[in-house]
Amino acid sequence: MLYDFRSFVNPGAYAFGVGSFNHLGELLDRQKNKKDDFVAYIIDDYFKDKENVTSRIPFKDNDIVIWISTDYEPKTELVNQYRDDILNHKQGQLPAVIVGMGGGIAMDYSKSIGLMLTNPGDSADYQGLDLIKNPGVYNICIPTVSGTGAEVSMTAVLSGPEKKLGIKCDWTIPNEIIFDPELLATVPDNIRFFVGMDCYIHNVESLTGTWISEMGRAFAEKSQELCIDVFTNENLKRIEADERMMVASIMGGNSITYAQVGVCHALSYGLSHVLGVHHGVGNCIVFNQLEKYYPDGYKVFKEMQQKQNVEIPSGITANCTEEQFDHMVEVSWALEHMWDNAFGHDWRNSITKEEIKALFKKM
Amino acid sequence: MLYDFRSFVNPGAYAFGVGSFNHLGELLDRQKNKKDDFVAYIIDDYFKDKENVTSRIPFKDNDIVIWISTDYEPKTELVNQYRDDILNHKQGQLPAVIVGMGGGIAMDYSKSIGLMLTNPGDSADYQGLDLIKNPGVYNICIPTVSGTGAEVSMTAVLSGPEKKLGIKCDWTIPNEIIFDPELLATVPDNIRFFVGMDCYIHNVESLTGTWISEMGRAFAEKSQELCIDVFTNENLKRIEADERMMVASIMGGNSITYAQVGVCHALSYGLSHVLGVHHGVGNCIVFNQLEKYYPDGYKVFKEMQQKQNVEIPSGITANCTEEQFDHMVEVSWALEHMWDNAFGHDWRNSITKEEIKALFKKM
Repeated sequence: MLYDFRSFVNPGAYAFGVGSFNHLGELLDRQKNKKDDFVAYIIDDYFKDKENVTSRIPFKDNDIVIWISTDYEPKTELVNQYRDDILNHKQGQLPAVIVGMGGGIAMDYSKSIGLMLTNPGDSADYQGLDLIKNPGVYNICIPTVSGTGAEVSMTAVLSGPEKKLGIKCDWTIPNEIIFDPELLATVPDNIRFFVGMDCYIHNVESLTGTWISEMGRAFAEKSQELCIDVFTNENLKRIEADERMMVASIMGGNSITYAQVGVCHALSYGLSHVLGVHHGVGNCIVFNQLEKYYPDGYKVFKEMQQKQNVEIPSGITANCTEEQFDHMVEVSWALEHMWDNAFGHDWRNSITKEEIKALFKKM
Repeated sequence: MLYDFRSFVNPGAYAFGVGSFNHLGELLDRQKNKKDDFVAYIIDDYFKDKENVTSRIPFKDNDIVIWISTDYEPKTELVNQYRDDILNHKQGQLPAVIVGMGGGIAMDYSKSIGLMLTNPGDSADYQGLDLIKNPGVYNICIPTVSGTGAEVSMTAVLSGPEKKLGIKCDWTIPNEIIFDPELLATVPDNIRFFVGMDCYIHNVESLTGTWISEMGRAFAEKSQELCIDVFTNENLKRIEADERMMVASIMGGNSITYAQVGVCHALSYGLSHVLGVHHGVGNCIVFNQLEKYYPDGYKVFKEMQQKQNVEIPSGITANCTEEQFDHMVEVSWALEHMWDNAFGHDWRNSITKEEIKALFKKM
């Protein structure tokens, strides 16, 4: 186990249901004390021209808005840069609230920037467990695509110069989350599937792992039931499916708090770090090769894929050099807690670097 | 609905699993800043002579311990008195932490006393929603019997001179909870059943109610599955069943946050207020008469009762006066939110005071 003992901090508060997004202004006002208090927004740039959404965000003149490109997974370098932009916005004054709106990328940026506003230096120095020294700025997350669990997790996953690893501590968890399923209405089918599968894979890895507790199991089992329903039940209206997927994501994310991810996430981190593949689709590319390790989970995964008629990219490592493959293997191999969960303490007897490399070559 | 919009505060943190109780000292130390900081303990007096448990509580010389009798459900008068005892302990100095250890009674005392230490006057004046003005003292709850959901709920249910009603606000929710299933080992079979049924009935009322959301539903469904497993699966070891029941209680309690209780709780409050019946057994006595309102839930309830071979008291209202029956009816009738959840806004067309009185007479 990663922890001898830990009292796990819960996400601060949930505003749940259709229409809850319209109350963002109230939640922000509760956190503002002084007249010149401002809000820092970190928003997926997909929404930049979505007037029907942006018109409902209670922007004020003194707020700062950073539109996040989702071309790449969050990088420590950009976390530092955005942090500096926010600090320069009003001569070092901290925002009263940082809002992260979007998928895992926007939310992990808001979580890590919120912490880096109160912890000096380079965010890469904080990749790991409990390295953060001070609580961050009050963080409100608003997921607009569901499955990553970023909205409830104690990790903000970042790619640094050396590694892909989360900033993980009690204060990484958002203070408040607005779950409004209407915000998920325009997510394209393939993205919806890839991100939903992040949740599905969390549950497979958590339920088959050695770190599981009764708490992690209950969350993962219910999350899995909802997730499979969302992607196989043809009688569900889209808004119902989206609402259900939000609950699945919460419970899948909570499950990982009381358990751990496994083989798929370890490999997927390696793949993303070297090739910049997005986490959701990266997980699918990897899981597509993991029938040996997760036979039951794999079977249902393929059924959902077929039903959703989504293609999983293949051949993405076809032109990789041996050096790149070795780099992927090293990034993956370093994620000891994931291997430990998947195979137990003697995990080095259960898988080799050669096997991992062979898997990458098939992707 | 009771709320037009609400961002629901989650319980602060969970320390979960066998052995977590041994870490209470660490959690207390984290909250102490000054040398003369002390802890106020509210403990079920069942443990007074249980050396194997009390020897593991890190009592310090300057702490104050209040042993709670569970003869009666929590009363506003005693909340005021214990609050005064704690304030008098060190000339008005507040404790750094208030610990509530026991079942729903001890936990609800600790939750309400924690709030009354920072909110002046009579606790009866705060029975209701959002009447509390100031956050309370840091509260750690340690359930030693599982099912009430008190450890995760935003209500501390109290009997006042006029009504049985909760002190309900964002700050009622405990800041930290230690879930150690070993603490449940010595709970007698009938108590274990009655308290477990509190959870089961929460789920029935939540799942059949009009206030249910996807969030409340997911929590209640999983909680119900666990609860039924605990009381029907003969292959479960007691420690496994106890651990599972702790998760069921968390999820059942969370479900009520995103839903509401119904007919059984409304009647049970009336019964308890007038006759002093304990909440768990009171719920069972009431639910035993509710086949008409909850036919499916009733059927499984009877199966579990049979399997557990527990007798549900009957004839407890045999000697009641008409005045007492009328009082029970009035206390129940006043719980509009419960009736609204059970039958919808036009609930007055679905049940009459005469029907309620007739039900009480059968108990």
